[in-house]
This record gives sequence, C-alpha cells and structure tokens, in this order.
Amino acid sequence: MPKAVAGPEIERLIQLLARLPGLGPRSARRAALFLIKKREPLMAPLAGALQTALETITVCNTCGNVDSQNPCTVCSDPRRDDNVIIVVADVADLWALERATAVNAKYHVLGGTLSPLDGVGPDDLTIGALVERAHAPEVTEVILALNATVDGQTTVHYITDLLHSANVKVTRLAHGVPVGGELDYLDEGTLAAAMRQRTQI
Amino acid sequence: MPKAVAGPEIERLIQLLARLPGLGPRSARRAALFLIKKREPLMAPLAGALQTALETITVCNTCGNVDSQNPCTVCSDPRRDDNVIIVVADVADLWALERATAVNAKYHVLGGTLSPLDGVGPDDLTIGALVERAHAPEVTEVILALNATVDGQTTVHYITDLLHSANVKVTRLAHGVPVGGELDYLDEGTLAAAMRQRTQI
Repeated sequence: MPKAVAGPEIERLIQLLARLPGLGPRSARRAALFLIKKREPLMAPLAGALQTALETITVCNTCGNVDSQNPCTVCSDPRRDDNVIIVVADVADLWALERATAVNAKYHVLGGTLSPLDGVGPDDLTIGALVERAHAPEVTEVILALNATVDGQTTVHYITDLLHSANVKVTRLAHGVPVGGELDYLDEGTLAAAMRQRTQI
Repeated sequence: MPKAVAGPEIERLIQLLARLPGLGPRSARRAALFLIKKREPLMAPLAGALQTALETITVCNTCGNVDSQNPCTVCSDPRRDDNVIIVVADVADLWALERATAVNAKYHVLGGTLSPLDGVGPDDLTIGALVERAHAPEVTEVILALNATVDGQTTVHYITDLLHSANVKVTRLAHGVPVGGELDYLDEGTLAAAMRQRTQI
C-alpha cells in the first residue's frame, strides 16, 4: 500500500473531483494539483462559485430548467412567445437548443425519456405537467425536441397520443443530413428520412 | 447571440470549471449540470473540500511538496530514510513515484526542469536549496528522477555537475523497455539503452 504523501484534505478533494463526468482518478489528481497551484486565480473563485451556486440555484417549478430564480429566466422572459412549448429530455438539451437556435419559445424539461428497460415510466417524467400546460388556451404548438433514439421516439409517440385531446399542433425535429455531413458516411435510415422530407429550393 | 437561459451564477461556475485541465467548455457544462443535479451528495462536499484546501494547504519549506502541514507528511515522517533525496520536477511526479515504488526516502521538488527555450534557468528552480540539502552530512545519495526528455536530461547533467563538491552518490532512473512493452514498437534510443544497461538474470 502506498504511504500517504499528502494530507487527507488533498485526497478528499481528488476523490470528489474524480466523480465529475469527464474526469477519472488520474485527471482528478492533475486537476487538484492545478487548483493548488492556481490558488488565488482559480481555487478561491471556484470554491466561491460553488458556494454561491449551492445557495442560489433551484429548479424552475414551471419548466424544470435550473436557474437562480424561480420561475426561471426563460419562463419569466416577457419577450418569449407563450404559444409554443419546446419539450426536451434534459436541461443540457435546453441549453444546446438555446445556443443553436433563435426559437422564441418556452420550454418543458421532461427529466429523461421513457425507457422500459431502465424502468423509466410516464410517472417518472413530468409528462402530466406538460399535458396540463399544453391545455392552456394560449398554447398553439408543442415541439418535441427529443433524441432520435428508440427511447426518444417512443416518448414522442406516447406524448403525441396524450396531446390529441389538447387543441395544439404537435411537431418534432426534422431528420436529415447533418450540416457538413457526407452522404457516403450516413446510415441508410437517415438518408431515407432526408429523401422523404426533402425541401424545395 | 444566444439569450441567457441560466443565471450568471451557473455561467460563472461553468467558466471556472472549464479552466481545469481535462475539461473543455462543453464538458465543463456537463460537469456543472452534474453538480447541480447531485447537489447534496457532490456539490456541497466539493465546495467544502475546496474551502478546506484553501485554508489548510501550503507548500513544504523543505522539499516543495504540497500538504496541509509544513514540514509536509513526507519530510516529518520519522520512518523515512534521511540519507536519500529523490529529486523530481513536479509534485505530480512525487505522487506518481509514491504510488509506484516503496523507496523509503525524502524528496526535493525542483518546480520544473531547465528549459532555455521557455526561459527557465537555474534560478527559477529550487536547485540552490537542493545543493544545500545534499551537503548535509547524513545525505549519501541523490536520485535524479526527472523526465527522460531533453529538458529533463539537461537538468540531470546540470545538477550532477553542481553536486560534485558534495560527498554523495548521484544516480538517475534506468532507461529501458517499459513493463508490458513490445520491442517492435519501441524507438531505437530506448532499445539501445535497454541493451547497454542489460541486467544479469
């Protein structure tokens, strides 16, 4: 067994950093040393930022986004269109869409996708709250922005069925050739979908 | 320009996490979301661990190791041999050696290697303090455990010259075939060194 070379404080810091996604035990050690070397410019601000985040960040009761205010920045933005709800599986997807597009709409975070194999059923997601929101008179469109995976598309069909009773248009993201993608390397399902959903120039 | 979807507290956390080695802007976002989701089991302990580290961790005045005590755990360990000093470039190398070997010795962290191209000269490293330590009567061997790079080996030669006046044996790590390595894939310099330094079975 290796002898202890550093105090328990450093070991604990390494162990916690190693639990972050993208960092393993070895890179957590590198990160800890980096933090120790950049004490004032990085370690102190990071400790402060984590403490601030702990004290301020909550989940939005309306859409499920994480923010320091509740309702969140998106839900309380008066410039956003109340008529359109974009449904995403996860907050990360919400952020990705906001970076990529300029859709002026509200969001709804499901908290995952239906996955019978993993034991995720409708009651584990915020589908009930979505159906309720979709029945509000001002809502005209629900955009299902879910992953193009089996679980994602199962969820799309399940939600579409539930929203039949609401007077809303239900849409989903287009399938097609990724921008910059080469046809030769694409799978046949994507190519066939891109051909079916071709658009006029 | 994307609209703000999360408060400035989250953005600040992401920016700071992105400066850690091994995390880029995208993985920092993932890490921040992960922390927000694991608020109690991970975010709170990490904030605490960073604060504790900030308050307790110092650099050892003797060897340059980082620890919560000064002199550090290694320097103040009475079971360690005072006769041997292992010279390393960086604290990470000290930790790596401690994990790998059972050498019962003290350390000396140089803080880098000589690098004329990067403007690192002898005065930027703790070479003076090392020479002083090596002149202590109890020291019999100085092991130069530096990288097998040009800069590392330049530093080895420079320090070896300086230690001529001290009555110590100066050694360096063996070159050779890495354990598990295949001869076919090794560079010629390593193979030649492994042949020259072959050992009797």
